[in-house]
Amino acid sequence: MSIEDQIQQTRAVVAALHAELPRWELVVWTAGNVSQRVVVGSAPGPTDLFVIKPSGVTYDELTAESMVVCDLDGNLVDGTRAPSSDTAAHAYVYRHMPSVGGVVHTHSTYATAWAARGEPVPCVLTMMADEFGGDVPIGPFALIGDDSIGRGIVETLQGSRSPAVLMRNHGPFTIGRDAKAAVKAAVMVEEVARTVHIARQLGDTIPIAQADIDSLYARYQNVYGQQPTHTPESDS
Amino acid sequence: MSIEDQIQQTRAVVAALHAELPRWELVVWTAGNVSQRVVVGSAPGPTDLFVIKPSGVTYDELTAESMVVCDLDGNLVDGTRAPSSDTAAHAYVYRHMPSVGGVVHTHSTYATAWAARGEPVPCVLTMMADEFGGDVPIGPFALIGDDSIGRGIVETLQGSRSPAVLMRNHGPFTIGRDAKAAVKAAVMVEEVARTVHIARQLGDTIPIAQADIDSLYARYQNVYGQQPTHTPESDS
Amino acid sequence: MSIEDQIQQTRAVVAALHAELPRWELVVWTAGNVSQRVVVGSAPGPTDLFVIKPSGVTYDELTAESMVVCDLDGNLVDGTRAPSSDTAAHAYVYRHMPSVGGVVHTHSTYATAWAARGEPVPCVLTMMADEFGGDVPIGPFALIGDDSIGRGIVETLQGSRSPAVLMRNHGPFTIGRDAKAAVKAAVMVEEVARTVHIARQLGDTIPIAQADIDSLYARYQNVYGQQPTHTPESDS
Amino acid sequence: MSIEDQIQQTRAVVAALHAELPRWELVVWTAGNVSQRVVVGSAPGPTDLFVIKPSGVTYDELTAESMVVCDLDGNLVDGTRAPSSDTAAHAYVYRHMPSVGGVVHTHSTYATAWAARGEPVPCVLTMMADEFGGDVPIGPFALIGDDSIGRGIVETLQGSRSPAVLMRNHGPFTIGRDAKAAVKAAVMVEEVARTVHIARQLGDTIPIAQADIDSLYARYQNVYGQQPTHTPESDS
Repeated sequence: MSIEDQIQQTRAVVAALHAELPRWELVVWTAGNVSQRVVVGSAPGPTDLFVIKPSGVTYDELTAESMVVCDLDGNLVDGTRAPSSDTAAHAYVYRHMPSVGGVVHTHSTYATAWAARGEPVPCVLTMMADEFGGDVPIGPFALIGDDSIGRGIVETLQGSRSPAVLMRNHGPFTIGRDAKAAVKAAVMVEEVARTVHIARQLGDTIPIAQADIDSLYARYQNVYGQQPTHTPESDS
Repeated sequence: MSIEDQIQQTRAVVAALHAELPRWELVVWTAGNVSQRVVVGSAPGPTDLFVIKPSGVTYDELTAESMVVCDLDGNLVDGTRAPSSDTAAHAYVYRHMPSVGGVVHTHSTYATAWAARGEPVPCVLTMMADEFGGDVPIGPFALIGDDSIGRGIVETLQGSRSPAVLMRNHGPFTIGRDAKAAVKAAVMVEEVARTVHIARQLGDTIPIAQADIDSLYARYQNVYGQQPTHTPESDS
Repeated sequence: MSIEDQIQQTRAVVAALHAELPRWELVVWTAGNVSQRVVVGSAPGPTDLFVIKPSGVTYDELTAESMVVCDLDGNLVDGTRAPSSDTAAHAYVYRHMPSVGGVVHTHSTYATAWAARGEPVPCVLTMMADEFGGDVPIGPFALIGDDSIGRGIVETLQGSRSPAVLMRNHGPFTIGRDAKAAVKAAVMVEEVARTVHIARQLGDTIPIAQADIDSLYARYQNVYGQQPTHTPESDS
Repeated sequence: MSIEDQIQQTRAVVAALHAELPRWELVVWTAGNVSQRVVVGSAPGPTDLFVIKPSGVTYDELTAESMVVCDLDGNLVDGTRAPSSDTAAHAYVYRHMPSVGGVVHTHSTYATAWAARGEPVPCVLTMMADEFGGDVPIGPFALIGDDSIGRGIVETLQGSRSPAVLMRNHGPFTIGRDAKAAVKAAVMVEEVARTVHIARQLGDTIPIAQADIDSLYARYQNVYGQQPTHTPESDS
């Protein structure tokens, strides 16, 4: 497939995946964005481009054509609109994590609430062990406008099994082998943030032993589903 | 009706009932599964097959054809996809509870929150007395991969009026005379888990006397509705 | 309009209003019911019949034809299905409150949560003063099967401006000049129960002075809207 | 564009924006209203008319034709229905804040819950710093029927960066350069009220330094989006 065809296909995928964010109630108004690295040729591998949502455009207006193409420094390469204000953070992740093919950012309510307290979500659900392999970690407070957010994401996730980081006072960023896997992680991080929040409202939760977490994570990452769909670490 | 026709009809019923899980907001992404025992002939009765959802397939993709058929040891008998990773638990229930014709598993939020604390939902609502005949019990912590989950479900529900068990740190499993009754129990267990959670957030709830619970349960199981729709115990 | 035409029109109104209950997320599965008194002739006035939902039928299946007609003792007069199991309570209200033309029962979550604690919802919102004229009261615990529920509703609401009562450990019943007004009260009681619950979770709410409640209630009942739509007391 | 065309266009805009209120779950039944100042000619500027929702009409019935036109004293100028009961408050805002082109009022649940406690929403989220530039303030308790509500809104917002005020025991009013900006503020104030509420349920939130709030606010108001969409203060 040519680079032009691959870009066009990636635009369509990224536009379609944005519809998952309001569908799962992860965003309001124009908040939130999805990006995917452009992969050239039949063999998957990193390139120096990614597709992302334009800034300040509502979800009803999103089309493949309105998506914008950026290089890994976050510069606009193709498109008629300004890229998302979070583009620098996405670009930093792609530059520093070669195995990552998709990035998602939302302000989903429960995940953001943990972020406002600066408190990791403890791993007390078997589905957290499956998907996150432990707690969902907190990243640093960072202002928008330079590499602070991207650096905070990468430094937090490189030492973690989790495909999600809760940036302090801000909200979740998630990664995956492609944008669909990152969207799935965005859906799941809100679900576990919400469930553990509710559990904790009426008392203490029961911890899961580390050996059981390890066992659940290993099994899920290797055998679940018809084929691997979310294995950001095993790609490394 | 021939066994082939009966399998085909059961595939259609199970596929259609999966749509109830996202409709009632019991699942996100591909989580959750519904199964139903295959009943042959005009007289209902147990057989050695059941129909269940394939693993890791999204709700938008579910069709009668994509459903898979398993024997009561959980082995794939018919279908082109791998069965749900929870198949062994469903199979164990069908092997050990002959009156059960349907099983549902979700991670519905409020029920799972009680499970994360390992705390039964107390029977403080008339609709709980009607549907569950008492508290909703907690089952043991169990790893996936052998009979532990199935055994935990059966041991908990055999001594209970409740068609729902909250597996610790995991989530609810429900049973019924058929898959529709098990889906109804899955909807109702989330509803009562949510309502009692909210009631308890602002103070103590008022207990219902055991004699009143017994009276409500007896009446509801016998006279409610146009015909019996959910009477897992009376089948025994 | 003939009595037959009036019954047919009331069946259509009651069937259509049932769709409001899931729309506003007041019910799950088959829970909840709406009824309306049959009014004969051009001058509104009480008759001895009302239309109500059949028992145990899902909201997808509700049509004007499936609605049933009962007399004020709750006996089935016309229809092919068994009336709702709450019919006796509706009938009792119509027998004892001539100004009431519609009754609604749900198990809506937040209203039921207050009922599980047996705690009235305090009037701390201007919209509560408008619609309820004060606190939403708690009715007694009552078993289904005789006049206990109906009597509890009537005894609680006859001394109150509120069109809603929260029956202890059970859920809300609401009344109105017609079924639409009772449905509106069912929507509003859940909304205020939810809002005040959330307010109270983080601390004390600020009371509204009784004189201000009286002023808001008097104004709203007299001048709001294009014409009176919910004035159960002023009909008396 | 003629004044008649401008009025007609404003009616269409205001009618369409009302659909955003139930879409974002900010209102139930007929509660909530949107208005927009009528702007004449190609150069934007204040006029002495605005378009608002009629009173007591459900969202399903709202059309451009049913919208009503009022002068800045709140008197009906054009339309067949009575204007919203909140018209006097909208009119007061337009009279006293020339840069405001749109006003929205809802009883959205979480914002109203903070209002029932009389407690400002603290600025602990980067998106609050972006959109509100600090805490969301509380306005005074005010009865409907004279200028009390409008005066409370204006006095609170004139000293604030926030486009939203939570009127005590009542609910949020929001302003913007046009009705769409005010609707966005209504959506965002509920979102931040909800997220901060949830964060606070399990412990203390981490404050954001005032200098960081200032930095985020300045950047967002100046560079976000394809063009300025919500800058009520910079218009002044």
